[in-house]
Amino acid sequence: MVELDHVVEEVLKVINDNGFSQKGAFNLRQNGTSICHGDSEHIKIKKKTDKPGIDIYIDGDTKGEKVYIPVVVSVSGMTDLVYNDFYIADGADVTIVAGCGIHNSGCNESRHDGIHTFHVGKNANVCYQEKHYGEGNGTGGRVLNPVTNIYVGENSVFTLDTAQIKGVDSTVRETLVEMDKNSRLYVTERLMTEGDQTAESNIEVRLNGEDSSAQIISRSVGKGNSVQTFHPKAVGNNKCQAHIQCDSIIMDHAEIGSIPEIRARDLNAAIIHEAAIGRINDEQLLKLRTLGLTEEEAENVIIENFLN
Amino acid sequence: MVELDHVVEEVLKVINDNGFSQKGAFNLRQNGTSICHGDSEHIKIKKKTDKPGIDIYIDGDTKGEKVYIPVVVSVSGMTDLVYNDFYIADGADVTIVAGCGIHNSGCNESRHDGIHTFHVGKNANVCYQEKHYGEGNGTGGRVLNPVTNIYVGENSVFTLDTAQIKGVDSTVRETLVEMDKNSRLYVTERLMTEGDQTAESNIEVRLNGEDSSAQIISRSVGKGNSVQTFHPKAVGNNKCQAHIQCDSIIMDHAEIGSIPEIRARDLNAAIIHEAAIGRINDEQLLKLRTLGLTEEEAENVIIENFLN
Repeated sequence: MVELDHVVEEVLKVINDNGFSQKGAFNLRQNGTSICHGDSEHIKIKKKTDKPGIDIYIDGDTKGEKVYIPVVVSVSGMTDLVYNDFYIADGADVTIVAGCGIHNSGCNESRHDGIHTFHVGKNANVCYQEKHYGEGNGTGGRVLNPVTNIYVGENSVFTLDTAQIKGVDSTVRETLVEMDKNSRLYVTERLMTEGDQTAESNIEVRLNGEDSSAQIISRSVGKGNSVQTFHPKAVGNNKCQAHIQCDSIIMDHAEIGSIPEIRARDLNAAIIHEAAIGRINDEQLLKLRTLGLTEEEAENVIIENFLN
Repeated sequence: MVELDHVVEEVLKVINDNGFSQKGAFNLRQNGTSICHGDSEHIKIKKKTDKPGIDIYIDGDTKGEKVYIPVVVSVSGMTDLVYNDFYIADGADVTIVAGCGIHNSGCNESRHDGIHTFHVGKNANVCYQEKHYGEGNGTGGRVLNPVTNIYVGENSVFTLDTAQIKGVDSTVRETLVEMDKNSRLYVTERLMTEGDQTAESNIEVRLNGEDSSAQIISRSVGKGNSVQTFHPKAVGNNKCQAHIQCDSIIMDHAEIGSIPEIRARDLNAAIIHEAAIGRINDEQLLKLRTLGLTEEEAENVIIENFLN
């Protein structure tokens, strides 16, 4: 077991919910290098030879297993680019816990660009959890620009649960999902920005296969002078169903934009979108304050509830 | 009274709902020229001297009056560009009935680009109705590219009721609305395309004034191989409310895209969007067919209801 430094351990607690323990299949990347990794009977992780990153092979007998692949950047001024490819065999049932934490206590920008590609076979069930987090008292920026490409095979279910908890100064998220026959996609995106942070999220879902379905739920809170832009897009190329829902709470002097796009290219494509941007519910606030909470505490309770 | 040819009379019946009669304030433009016009006590129409088009002055004592300004293009191969400016004084209450019909029985493209600008004062109530329509058995295209700029003054109400009934081969609609304090906007857009027709509609509403509010309802039906794209945008720059709703029925091999954008730049901006694209309701269809209607008749009843 590799001994981890204190900063890494603290960051892992946040981005992996205390679940990371160097057992089973895992890979921990710190400052551009894999510092420890393990395989399990059904999940094998191989270092790429042509570029930075790993290939993760998940066989069809994987049932309910979790694989942890956290990334920590703790050096100020570093740009870490990584390519992770997931090969998920027919019938596999797996949870992938990713997540990236940047600890920046210097004055230079620290940045992680993770390019993740998922090749999901038939009849599989994949849950991908990803938490993005920044900390440290340096003035250098904490930047995360993830690219996520997902190919969902016939009859498979893909759940994408992504959260930007706090401390990320700038993010541009690009997500592309291609869906085969009878596949299902569930996306939950949660995002909080404050100060002068900016966040942009572009999600495109192509419902190519008959009877494919997608649900995208995006919830965000914008505080301070932060700016957020969401551009979820669902394209129905076949008989399919899609539902996009974006809800945002705006606070202080934040700016929030929501530009969903729904496009039907088939008579039997049924696509729905809903979006709302508004301030914190005054009645909820009042109620919590009459229970003895300060305004700030009451706001935090509402925000936490809204994002969870 | 100017005698109108048969084609013009028939087109006017469609685009002006039989309301045009060369009485009161009116201006009829045919093939690039004003062929008749009249003023009323409160509404004066002046021909522009620097470019094609008219200035329409509506005084503050106008109460419930209608002004007709239809346009007919009946020559194949013509491009008609016109600038119409409306100066609506404080307190006026007026209905402006525009509308453009293209009768093309030739093989060349006929096109009308109407650039309309509305300067609306305070405490006014303006209703602007506009119907777009194409006909004629020629192979030449019928093209309508309207640009509409609207400045809504304090406490004023602006109602924009726009419909593209049928026969328009290509349209790109650009609408920009700037809203002052306590003003209200109601937009209803209805659009039907068939064959190889294409339609694009871009509406941007800027809610600049405190307590301004906007409601945009867009309903469309896409038949044949037609392609429609909607891009309504509401920007909340102050304490305001906006609601955008887009509903589309997709038929045959049509393609419909809806890309609403809501953007809040103020803590007290509350903006909501809803959009849905789907096929004709099967149960409604079945019900009407059991009442003895053919499939086509039943579809037409549903479409007409949906668009009205």
